[in-house]
Amino acid sequence: MQKIKPRTLSGFMELLPSEQVSFDTMMQRLRDSFSLFGFTPLDTPLMEASEILLAKGGGETEKQMYQLSKGDTDLALRYELTTSLAKYVTLYYNDLTFPFRRYEIGKVYRGERAQRGRFREFYQADIDIIGDGSLNILNEAEIPSIIYKALTSLGLSRFYIRINNRKVLSGFYEIIGLGDKITEIMRSVDKLDKIGSEKLLKLLTEDLGLTESQSDEIISFVTHSGDPFEKLGEYKGKNEAFDVGTDELLTLKTHLSGFGVPESHYKIDLSLARGLDYYTGTVYETYLTDYPEVGSVGGGGRYDNLAEYFTDRKMPGVGISIGLNRLFYILQEQNLLSDDFYSSPADVLVLPMTDDLSHAVSLATSMREAGLKVQLYTENKKFKVKVAYADKLNIPFVVFLGEDEINGGVITVKDMTNGQQTTASAAILTAGICDKIKALNKNPPVQGQ
Amino acid sequence: MQKIKPRTLSGFMELLPSEQVSFDTMMQRLRDSFSLFGFTPLDTPLMEASEILLAKGGGETEKQMYQLSKGDTDLALRYELTTSLAKYVTLYYNDLTFPFRRYEIGKVYRGERAQRGRFREFYQADIDIIGDGSLNILNEAEIPSIIYKALTSLGLSRFYIRINNRKVLSGFYEIIGLGDKITEIMRSVDKLDKIGSEKLLKLLTEDLGLTESQSDEIISFVTHSGDPFEKLGEYKGKNEAFDVGTDELLTLKTHLSGFGVPESHYKIDLSLARGLDYYTGTVYETYLTDYPEVGSVGGGGRYDNLAEYFTDRKMPGVGISIGLNRLFYILQEQNLLSDDFYSSPADVLVLPMTDDLSHAVSLATSMREAGLKVQLYTENKKFKVKVAYADKLNIPFVVFLGEDEINGGVITVKDMTNGQQTTASAAILTAGICDKIKALNKNPPVQGQ
Repeated sequence: MQKIKPRTLSGFMELLPSEQVSFDTMMQRLRDSFSLFGFTPLDTPLMEASEILLAKGGGETEKQMYQLSKGDTDLALRYELTTSLAKYVTLYYNDLTFPFRRYEIGKVYRGERAQRGRFREFYQADIDIIGDGSLNILNEAEIPSIIYKALTSLGLSRFYIRINNRKVLSGFYEIIGLGDKITEIMRSVDKLDKIGSEKLLKLLTEDLGLTESQSDEIISFVTHSGDPFEKLGEYKGKNEAFDVGTDELLTLKTHLSGFGVPESHYKIDLSLARGLDYYTGTVYETYLTDYPEVGSVGGGGRYDNLAEYFTDRKMPGVGISIGLNRLFYILQEQNLLSDDFYSSPADVLVLPMTDDLSHAVSLATSMREAGLKVQLYTENKKFKVKVAYADKLNIPFVVFLGEDEINGGVITVKDMTNGQQTTASAAILTAGICDKIKALNKNPPVQGQ
Repeated sequence: MQKIKPRTLSGFMELLPSEQVSFDTMMQRLRDSFSLFGFTPLDTPLMEASEILLAKGGGETEKQMYQLSKGDTDLALRYELTTSLAKYVTLYYNDLTFPFRRYEIGKVYRGERAQRGRFREFYQADIDIIGDGSLNILNEAEIPSIIYKALTSLGLSRFYIRINNRKVLSGFYEIIGLGDKITEIMRSVDKLDKIGSEKLLKLLTEDLGLTESQSDEIISFVTHSGDPFEKLGEYKGKNEAFDVGTDELLTLKTHLSGFGVPESHYKIDLSLARGLDYYTGTVYETYLTDYPEVGSVGGGGRYDNLAEYFTDRKMPGVGISIGLNRLFYILQEQNLLSDDFYSSPADVLVLPMTDDLSHAVSLATSMREAGLKVQLYTENKKFKVKVAYADKLNIPFVVFLGEDEINGGVITVKDMTNGQQTTASAAILTAGICDKIKALNKNPPVQGQ
């Protein structure tokens, strides 16, 4: 038979079993974290009619979108999760209760040029809180605590959340008489981290034609390193949006510690703009403290109108998105995946040493009833191969069940981590194994740094 | 702005929040059940190069496959999970340890004609055990216990697993001199449940041209209602495959009770054939006892050559597949989803009754630290609307935090299930709520029937 050469498309992540367990555990811990804040899970289709996914306009998005036809319907794979959410809240508006809190962890598709750390198929983990007409600022104040909880639940400790407010930014540019150039200026300021203030100054004066004093004022504003509210105070009372934004930032600062976010883990940063048109209030970006060069590992913000392409109903919201495959890739690259993480497919390997397998079968069943993950090894191999099987899969406990054990009503367990062998009743040893597995399962997938 | 009419493609399931929680819980219970038997999770790409997914040949499959092109690559969405598994074990052969036990719960795509209960996007939950060159019969004997564990974990109780062996069937037809007509005969016998034995007799004699006595022998064999091994005994020693298959069935029967499958939940059924070419040993189909008309809710069997389109390496395996959306649809249609199932997005709604929100924020944070799912309601609405919010979402506990509570160092909790209101310290009430939520979370998504 002619064989087809097996391959996986480039840009499509495919993991080995132990890696997959880390990845799945990360997803589960994110789900658990989001649930603590009262978010309900959604799982919307990966495929929609093209007109739905292209509702907010094409451009670069349309070029990267995977599109196809079936029958006479034009279809596309989702590029992100927000459009699906906008469709969902419009379509099921009458069945939902607002503010509507949902999370969705699902695959999205982008036909980008494949490169290291960039994926064409990847998971986004999104949370959003959608209001009906209005949405209280406290929802924006709560978001950093969700990011904090989510990332610490993975085992990460050294990260911080940059926070700013778009109203402050647009107000500031209005005040200094540059309201008509906001978009271009923000685009330049967004590069500050990468290019430094000297080059930013050049960009603002030479490329955008700002005066030296305007540029200086901008750079002084966005690079202010002391108390941001001191800087904000200098412009107070000059622009309504600016003052509202300042109050919102203050509300965030007031509540962040009550929400459990330590001061070490956030920074109000007047240089953060995050995108251009969509966000209208608080914006967030999250960075790994020791790896600033990898950029943000998750961010989002407040927007005023989620579903304007589908409905006249005004639905403001706030949300964040974490690209899981990129985060996983970074953790792998930086050696931050924990060696102590327990990813074995089985807690116990039962090795029958007699022809009659019925005792081994019953033992496996009772250990499973106790909640243990049990494999029964019955292949016709040499003893050495059987033990090597447990070793290769990092199965921590091997049970030997021979004539002697069966006759004595006991089992023999080998602890593979230290080689120690114990013979005792199945009930006692099962309980002991359960305790040890419980401890192993506590180790988070990421090491604390 | 011109609005786009929001819609979801027909054949694509989209659930309301509380339904989604049931669905997700079902998935999680399946994952947990599969894990108990030492299966490791995989998550392979939904999209592959077309040549990979079409490796085993086209026909009806190719017609229903969603295909597309991006750049100069022909792509397709997976139609089922087995081809992805075959690719995976070939590609990562050197990194895997055999027998390789994996489960995958993932979406697959079929451009079928949409009809009630048929989906174009749906989850398959697959488990497979793949051997390297050989695979012991005990793996086949273990499969019914996995089905049993998985379905009981959902809350189902009245179901049974039909079991047969393809070697027995092919041997039997060889013995009665009809080895060259196996495919057509099996295809007819597969209809027995639907058409009855009288019509089957007609089909065998008139359409396939079998003699009356051949047809009678077939019908007597497949409809045998007593001990199947009595019937099998009549043909013993006449055909090697038949005898091997009989021994394999006997091995299954011997171990099923040790594996924890009650006699009420399986039936060795000589009429079961399940498909035609792929399966080579034990085959399984699972039925809801009270709803035979909905057909099998999951099945599978033993095959000899998983990856023959990709490699010369012989990899026999055994596996089963459950179509989750169809199962969920059936459970919904038959009113088998439990009313007692707990699907609220939050355990507790905290309602601050003062302008200063800091106490409410701290309380929400400490209740989350205790593991409770907490929402903080801060929208500017009337008291009635706030309580109605909890009511609509079935949030079981509402916490009122007013001046009196704050001054007294207490909180007031309303149990929404009975209207009872209690005022006490946050620590005591949090512990009480935790206990009640723990109990609620035990209710399975499906009612016991």
